[in-house]
Amino acid sequence: MTYTAVELIETKRDGEKLPPDAIEWLIASYTDGVLPDYQMAAMAMAIVFKGLDGDELATWTAAMLNSGEVLDFSDIPLAKIDKHSTGGVGDKISIPLVPLVAACGVAVPMISGRGLGHTGGTLDKLESIPGFTTRIDTGRFHEILARHNLVLAGQSDTMIPADRKLYALRDATGTVPSVPLIASSIMSKKLAEGLDGLLLDVKTGSGATMRRLEDSRRLAETMVGIGIDNGVETVALITSMEQPLGNEVGNSNEIRESVAVLRGEGPADVTEVTLSFGEVMLELAGIDGGRDRLEETIASGAALQKLIDVTRAHGGDPIVLEDTSLLETAPYEGVITAESGGYVTRCDAFTIGVGARRLGAGRERQEDDVDHGVGVSLRAKLGDQVTEGDPLAIVHYRDEARWAGERDRLASAWSIGSEPPVTTDLILERVDHTVT
Amino acid sequence: MTYTAVELIETKRDGEKLPPDAIEWLIASYTDGVLPDYQMAAMAMAIVFKGLDGDELATWTAAMLNSGEVLDFSDIPLAKIDKHSTGGVGDKISIPLVPLVAACGVAVPMISGRGLGHTGGTLDKLESIPGFTTRIDTGRFHEILARHNLVLAGQSDTMIPADRKLYALRDATGTVPSVPLIASSIMSKKLAEGLDGLLLDVKTGSGATMRRLEDSRRLAETMVGIGIDNGVETVALITSMEQPLGNEVGNSNEIRESVAVLRGEGPADVTEVTLSFGEVMLELAGIDGGRDRLEETIASGAALQKLIDVTRAHGGDPIVLEDTSLLETAPYEGVITAESGGYVTRCDAFTIGVGARRLGAGRERQEDDVDHGVGVSLRAKLGDQVTEGDPLAIVHYRDEARWAGERDRLASAWSIGSEPPVTTDLILERVDHTVT
Repeated sequence: MTYTAVELIETKRDGEKLPPDAIEWLIASYTDGVLPDYQMAAMAMAIVFKGLDGDELATWTAAMLNSGEVLDFSDIPLAKIDKHSTGGVGDKISIPLVPLVAACGVAVPMISGRGLGHTGGTLDKLESIPGFTTRIDTGRFHEILARHNLVLAGQSDTMIPADRKLYALRDATGTVPSVPLIASSIMSKKLAEGLDGLLLDVKTGSGATMRRLEDSRRLAETMVGIGIDNGVETVALITSMEQPLGNEVGNSNEIRESVAVLRGEGPADVTEVTLSFGEVMLELAGIDGGRDRLEETIASGAALQKLIDVTRAHGGDPIVLEDTSLLETAPYEGVITAESGGYVTRCDAFTIGVGARRLGAGRERQEDDVDHGVGVSLRAKLGDQVTEGDPLAIVHYRDEARWAGERDRLASAWSIGSEPPVTTDLILERVDHTVT
Repeated sequence: MTYTAVELIETKRDGEKLPPDAIEWLIASYTDGVLPDYQMAAMAMAIVFKGLDGDELATWTAAMLNSGEVLDFSDIPLAKIDKHSTGGVGDKISIPLVPLVAACGVAVPMISGRGLGHTGGTLDKLESIPGFTTRIDTGRFHEILARHNLVLAGQSDTMIPADRKLYALRDATGTVPSVPLIASSIMSKKLAEGLDGLLLDVKTGSGATMRRLEDSRRLAETMVGIGIDNGVETVALITSMEQPLGNEVGNSNEIRESVAVLRGEGPADVTEVTLSFGEVMLELAGIDGGRDRLEETIASGAALQKLIDVTRAHGGDPIVLEDTSLLETAPYEGVITAESGGYVTRCDAFTIGVGARRLGAGRERQEDDVDHGVGVSLRAKLGDQVTEGDPLAIVHYRDEARWAGERDRLASAWSIGSEPPVTTDLILERVDHTVT
């Protein structure tokens, strides 16, 4: 069959099903530049409203995945397991998690992204380590993985070109919030890594892409479905993103907190999530020992050593991991204090994420640079008791005018009340089967 | 306020209202080429799903209208009234109608379009007259109107550039069927003519853009609302487009039938619609006499003389109006015959329109040429009694292979049954006030 783009856009606009070969043609033509951006933009908006069903989504994801190189690590005899997060504020979990499970014998070929909007990105955080390069070719990627069970890189130009093009277009056309488009984008990236298993962290709440639990659940179920359809054992955990994860937000700040976790000195919430996720990754890899094994691997120093070794393999200087005070810190320090005494009833992830971004820790546009030294250290989180004048956060910044403009907005992230708030679990649900 | 295109797309996608200055910025930026096609495509698809309310639509239409030159005929002391049709098969009504009312003292500054899809266009039909040019500048447009009460031209490059750009984009992105986008496109074109009154012919049925009466009614009400908001007295008539209007479909064919109407020898349906529309245009112009006056103007030969004079003003050779057998006719003649006897219960406008287009009478793409000599002469319409082997249509074509490929499809436009069908009035409803 031959198709015209207009007919296919009309088909989706009218809520009908796109045939498999039409989807393949659409993605291939778009990747090749034959299908213009304006037609794909109209199609993406039609999908925002009308969705893609399971069959369409499977074909769509496979077409994206096959638009470029698919990695193959079948020569590495370990289980290849990766983890993906939909992104949150202070979400540095990958950084302590993957050296920990790699030290337990899981191979983790992790391809990460950069921060955009109010959330940070693993690549930006890793680049706080002087010399750490995430731009490596497929050969070197394979080599580091084979040697260290772990590699931490950015997406290469040869992989999933369809997704890179479509992602940029969606960002510019208001077509980001669509469960099938988000799910196929994430899953095409992850399936291109040649995995045996995948752990998905789907955030929900104020600081997440999906603010409502039912949307997060639908995204989780959709992605687990795609993974299973493609023969990759996939588990999603839905986790709360009402307040930032841990006490540190910002690039150097989050490396510092990650190292603390690998030393067994991390804050309770980050440590708990790291261990829980580690348990699922061991389970997916078929490795025994669970939480005990993970705790031993931290206690022995093997987990931190893995991060140090991998840092060196990526050209980074591990001295900053041995002495985290050497990580870049912005020159000025501001304090946000409690205006009254009581319990912290709100510590809003989104507001803190936006504030950190505006101060320079994140980027507004894809081409912006981030300032590794800017960050927010939280001193009071949900349920903490404070008295008037107590510090709620210490902020490191570089630009005094920006700080003056952002201070009050950042301070508005906290609410103080007379009663302690009801708090929920961090890990809310596990999705590990396709719901039909 | 400054806006970003993405924020505005998101606003509309989420069903919220676009502020007036945002709409003005959007249309101006798009016209200037600052806003890229892909963002306007996403916006157009969001409007397909979420619409524009009355306020948004008024601003949107005014912004399109003001993107280019707006004509001013205030020096011409007659009422300026135009007529627009949403397009149908065999819909040549403008061609007999406007010389008729111009001969009665109405000034008609008509800017028409070309055929696209299964419907023909007034410009293509007029160009069946050798030498008739519809590309004239504003000065000449004004001159012909002042002299003859009538001018028949295509859209100039200086008028509503926003609409020309957006129309082409909608055609390529599956965003044509949206009541606010259709209404603002039509009304911005017509309001740029500097009118006092406007008659809208909104077609409904198989051969129309809007197939369902309720959609046609909504379009009619929307356009009448825009007209009245802009101080132009506007009346819409909703007319049936189940079967072609008249007996002739094609460019030369429809000029021939139009001349017949102006001679008082036209088929009953085309004559009736012409007179009914003429009555409304006289009413809008405040000219007395109604149907009697129109019939007298035909009987005296003044109406046909007006078409002859205007044809000469446009550089056309009126000899083909005096002897319509001189109009171009394609060399081959095919016949479609009844396969059984009975009553014609279906004579499908859409199928006949598509068939005529495929044989060359219309165009698939904007840049195609039309063949003025190709056409379909209907010999049996809804309710007519036929016996087996009677001709249903005589087809003039130029390409034997195309005819062989299209014959059966064209023949499928007719159904013959044993009982006469229930027929409806041609003019179904009049809309002349805004419904709130």
